[in-house]
Amino acid sequence: MPLSDADAYSKAVKHAREIAILSSIDSMLGWDERVNLPPAGGEYRADQMTFLAGQMHERWTDAKFGELLEQLAGSDLAKDPASDTGATIRQLKRKRDKKTKLPQALVEEQARLAVLGQQAWVEARKNNDFASFQPLLTRIVELKRQEANALGFKECAYDALLDDYEPDELTSNVRRVLAGLREELVPLVAAIKESGRQPDVSILNRSFPIDVQKRFSLDVAAKIGFDFQRGRLDETAHPFCSGLGPNDCRLTTRYTERHFPEAFFGTLHEAGHGLYDQGLNPEQYGLPLGDAISLGIHELQSRMWENFVGRSRAFWDHFYSHLKASFHGALGGVSPEAFYFAINDVRPSLIRIESDEATYNLHILIRFELEQALINDNLPVADLPEAWRKKYQEYLGISSDTDADGVLQDIHWSGGAIGYFSTYSLGNLYAAQFFHQANVDLKGAHGTLNEQFTRGEFAPLLGWLREKIHSQGQRYSAATLVERVTGKPLSHKPLMEHLKTKFGPLYGL
Amino acid sequence: MPLSDADAYSKAVKHAREIAILSSIDSMLGWDERVNLPPAGGEYRADQMTFLAGQMHERWTDAKFGELLEQLAGSDLAKDPASDTGATIRQLKRKRDKKTKLPQALVEEQARLAVLGQQAWVEARKNNDFASFQPLLTRIVELKRQEANALGFKECAYDALLDDYEPDELTSNVRRVLAGLREELVPLVAAIKESGRQPDVSILNRSFPIDVQKRFSLDVAAKIGFDFQRGRLDETAHPFCSGLGPNDCRLTTRYTERHFPEAFFGTLHEAGHGLYDQGLNPEQYGLPLGDAISLGIHELQSRMWENFVGRSRAFWDHFYSHLKASFHGALGGVSPEAFYFAINDVRPSLIRIESDEATYNLHILIRFELEQALINDNLPVADLPEAWRKKYQEYLGISSDTDADGVLQDIHWSGGAIGYFSTYSLGNLYAAQFFHQANVDLKGAHGTLNEQFTRGEFAPLLGWLREKIHSQGQRYSAATLVERVTGKPLSHKPLMEHLKTKFGPLYGL
Repeated sequence: MPLSDADAYSKAVKHAREIAILSSIDSMLGWDERVNLPPAGGEYRADQMTFLAGQMHERWTDAKFGELLEQLAGSDLAKDPASDTGATIRQLKRKRDKKTKLPQALVEEQARLAVLGQQAWVEARKNNDFASFQPLLTRIVELKRQEANALGFKECAYDALLDDYEPDELTSNVRRVLAGLREELVPLVAAIKESGRQPDVSILNRSFPIDVQKRFSLDVAAKIGFDFQRGRLDETAHPFCSGLGPNDCRLTTRYTERHFPEAFFGTLHEAGHGLYDQGLNPEQYGLPLGDAISLGIHELQSRMWENFVGRSRAFWDHFYSHLKASFHGALGGVSPEAFYFAINDVRPSLIRIESDEATYNLHILIRFELEQALINDNLPVADLPEAWRKKYQEYLGISSDTDADGVLQDIHWSGGAIGYFSTYSLGNLYAAQFFHQANVDLKGAHGTLNEQFTRGEFAPLLGWLREKIHSQGQRYSAATLVERVTGKPLSHKPLMEHLKTKFGPLYGL
Repeated sequence: MPLSDADAYSKAVKHAREIAILSSIDSMLGWDERVNLPPAGGEYRADQMTFLAGQMHERWTDAKFGELLEQLAGSDLAKDPASDTGATIRQLKRKRDKKTKLPQALVEEQARLAVLGQQAWVEARKNNDFASFQPLLTRIVELKRQEANALGFKECAYDALLDDYEPDELTSNVRRVLAGLREELVPLVAAIKESGRQPDVSILNRSFPIDVQKRFSLDVAAKIGFDFQRGRLDETAHPFCSGLGPNDCRLTTRYTERHFPEAFFGTLHEAGHGLYDQGLNPEQYGLPLGDAISLGIHELQSRMWENFVGRSRAFWDHFYSHLKASFHGALGGVSPEAFYFAINDVRPSLIRIESDEATYNLHILIRFELEQALINDNLPVADLPEAWRKKYQEYLGISSDTDADGVLQDIHWSGGAIGYFSTYSLGNLYAAQFFHQANVDLKGAHGTLNEQFTRGEFAPLLGWLREKIHSQGQRYSAATLVERVTGKPLSHKPLMEHLKTKFGPLYGL
C-alpha cells in the first residue's frame, strides 16, 4: 500500500533530521579541528570526518528517501513552492539530486583531502612553502573538476561549483554584476589615492592588550544582539563562524596586540554570521526552513554588521568613549574623527582579510577569476603563484614577495572550497541593497538607523533582518528574496552609493 | 561458502574499528559538552549523543558481527588467550555479549539521561538543590537496576555494574580488599590525628596567579612525559581526561587562585591518565590491544603520578626551586620542608577530590557502600542525602551542612556512572603494588626511583609502565597482570606500607 503524502512527508523530514544530526556532528569535529586539535591528531580526525561524510552521503542517496521525495514532488504538498512543505520538498530534492550525481568514492576522498589539505596549508603558509602544498591542491582541483562534470552545468564547469554556495546563480551573471561594480569602483579607488589624504593608521598599531580586546569584543557582540547563552567566541588561525546545533553557534577570531581592527572587526563580522544562525528557526534546524539561503546572503549579514554598522560614524559615536576607556594607553589622545578615519583607510593592500571596504572587492575578483581559470581553463596549479602576482599587479598595483602573503593567504582552497569567493562580493552587494531598504522601512518614530546606532540601539535592525531574512530560511531563492524585500533585482548601485557617500567626505571628493 | 578464519578476523576487526570511530566521536562530543558547550546547547547535544549511542549499539549487536565472533571464538585464532588474535577475539566477544543483552531503548534513554543528568547536576550543585536533581537521578538508578537485571550477575546486581568498569571483578572481592585496607587505615588516620602535628596549610591558600599556574602545570606535565603534540589541557568544572583518538588526548583541570594543589595535582592526576592513553598502541586504537584494561588500572596511573611521584619529597627536591621562582609572592619565605608537609596534610574533610592520600579511600568506601544500597537494597534516592551525612559522620567524623558539599559533589551518578567509585581505591592499591615493583626492577645503575625523581628523571618509570602495562592493552585481565608483573595477587599491604613510610616521619609516629 502506498504511503499517504502526509506520511511520506514526515518520513522524509525524519530522514533529513538524521542527516542534520550527522552534519552538525561533522561541523563540531571541523570546529574542533580548527580551534583545538593537537598537531598529531589530524590523521584520525580525517578518518572520523571521512566516515561521517560517507554516512551522510549514504543517507542522502538512500533510494527510499529518493522515492519519498519523488512522490512528494508530484503531490499537493509541493504545489505552492513558497509554502512550508513546498519549500522543504523543493530544497531537499534539489540537494539530493545533486548528491546522487556524486560517486561515494569521490565524496570520501574529498572529505579526507579537505582535512589533510587544511593541515598542509597551515604548514605551507607558516613556512612560505607553496611547493609542499602544491600536490594536495592539484589533487583537490582535479577532484573539483570531476565533481563539476559529475554534476553537470549550464554554461561552464565553474557554474556547478558556484551552485554549491550560491544556488541557482550563474558564473556569467556574477561576472556581469562584478563588472558593473569594477567599472565604478576602480575610478573611486583611484580618486581616493589621488586625493592625497591619508589617515594616521599607526594609532591602530599601538598596544591593545589582548585580554582587554577580548572583553571589549565580547561586550560589543552581545550589545548588537549575539546571544552567548546560545554561542561562544574562541580563537583560531583563520576565523570563521560555525553553527553546531540550533542553540550552539561558535564564533572565532584572532587577536593581535598591535593591530586593533583585526580581532574587533573580525568578531563583528563573525557575529554578523552568528546573528543569522541564531535567527534561523531552531525547530527547523538543519532542514530547508531553518537553513541559510546561500553564502552570499550569509555574507550580507557579516558585512552589514562589520561595515555598514561597525565602521559607521554613528556606531562609534556610541561606542568610542567605551573604547577609549578600555584602551586608554593607546587611544587617550586620539579624537573620534581620527579613529573613524583610521578604521576607514582605503588603500591597495596584499591581504584580503585586512583590506578595506572598497578594495576588498578587487581581492575577490582576482580569486574569482583564478578559480575560473583553474576549473574552466585548466590553469596548472604550479602556475598559480605567478598568476596571483600578475593579477594583484594588474588590479591593485602591488604584489607580494612571498606566497604566504600571496596565494597561500586564504584557507578556502585547501578545504576544497572552490567557487566560494565571489559570494563575499555578492554579500557586499546584498548588504548595501538590504541596508538601504532597512533604512527606508525603519525610518519611523525612532529616526534613521544611524540615529539609532548613535543611541546604541541595534534591535530594530536585527528585528528587521530576523523578519525579512532569517525567519524565512530557504523559502525563497536569493534572487527572489532581494526582489521581494527591496523591489529590485541585485545591482551594484546601492553599494557604490554607500561607498561614495562614505568616502566622499572622508577624502574630500 | 564460509569465510576463512583469517577473513572473518579482518572483517570483525574492520567492524570494530568503525565502532571505535563512532565511539571516538562520541567522546569528542562529551569532551566539548563539558569544556565548551553553551548553556542552551545541551538539548541538541543530547540528541546527537543519543543518535551516536544508537549507531554504536546497532553495530555492536549486528547479527553478522556476532556470527563472525562465534566462528572466531571456536577457531585456532582464539586458542592462546594472550595472543594478539586471542585477546582481541575474547574481548570483542565479551563486550558484544554484554551489549546484546541490553535493549536498544534502554541504551538510548541512558545516553540521553547521561547528558540531561549532567546538566541538571551542574545546576543542582550550584544552587545546593538536591530536590531538582532527584527525579533524574531516580530514573538513572531505575535504569541501572534494569541494566543489571538484563545483564545478569553472579552474586548481586551491583556485580553487573562493577563489571563495566572493572571487568571480571566481584563486589564481594572488592569489599574484602577494602575491608583489609580499612582495618589498618583507620588506626593510622587516628594516630595522625592524635599526633597533634599539623602542617601550615594556609601557605597553599595564598595568591597563586592563574596564568602562572597554567604555565607551571603545562611545564611539569610535559616534563613527566605527556606529549602536547598529541594532546592538550583545558579547563572544566569537574576535571577529567579523555582520549579522542590515537593521537589526541585531552586533559582538563580547574584553577583556583587561592588553592594551589587543586589545579596542580589535578593536572598531574589527569596527566597520569593521559600517559596511559598515550602509551597505548595507536595502531590498535579502540581495539582490545589498544585499549585500557580497567578503570582501576587507569587510576593506577593517575594516582601513581599524582601521589607516589608528585607528592614525594624527591619530586619537590627537583621542582621546588622552579615552583618558588614561579610563585615568589606566595612561597618566597616557605621552606621545602614546610611545603612538602603542607601538600601531605592528612585530615578528615568533606570533599573527595580535595582529600588527602590516606583519607581518600574512606570517601570511596562511603560511595561504594551507598551505590550497593541503591542498587542491591533499593535505598530510595530521596534518602540519599541523609544516608550520605550519616556515613560521613561514621567514617570521617564530620558531615556537610549542604548537599552541594555532600551528595552533590561528584559528577559520576549524574552521567549514569554507578559502579565506578571503587575503582579509585583499587587504583591506589594497584599503584602501590606496581610502584613497589618498579622500584625493585629499576634499581640499577641509576639508583632508586626517588633518586631519579630528584634528578628530574621520569623517563625510566614511564618506560617501565609503557612496557609492563600500556603496551599490553587488554591482553591480560587486571588480576592476571598484577600477578605477572608483581608476582602476587592484589593486596592492601603495599599501600599501607607506603602510607606508613611516608606519614610516619611526617607525623612522628
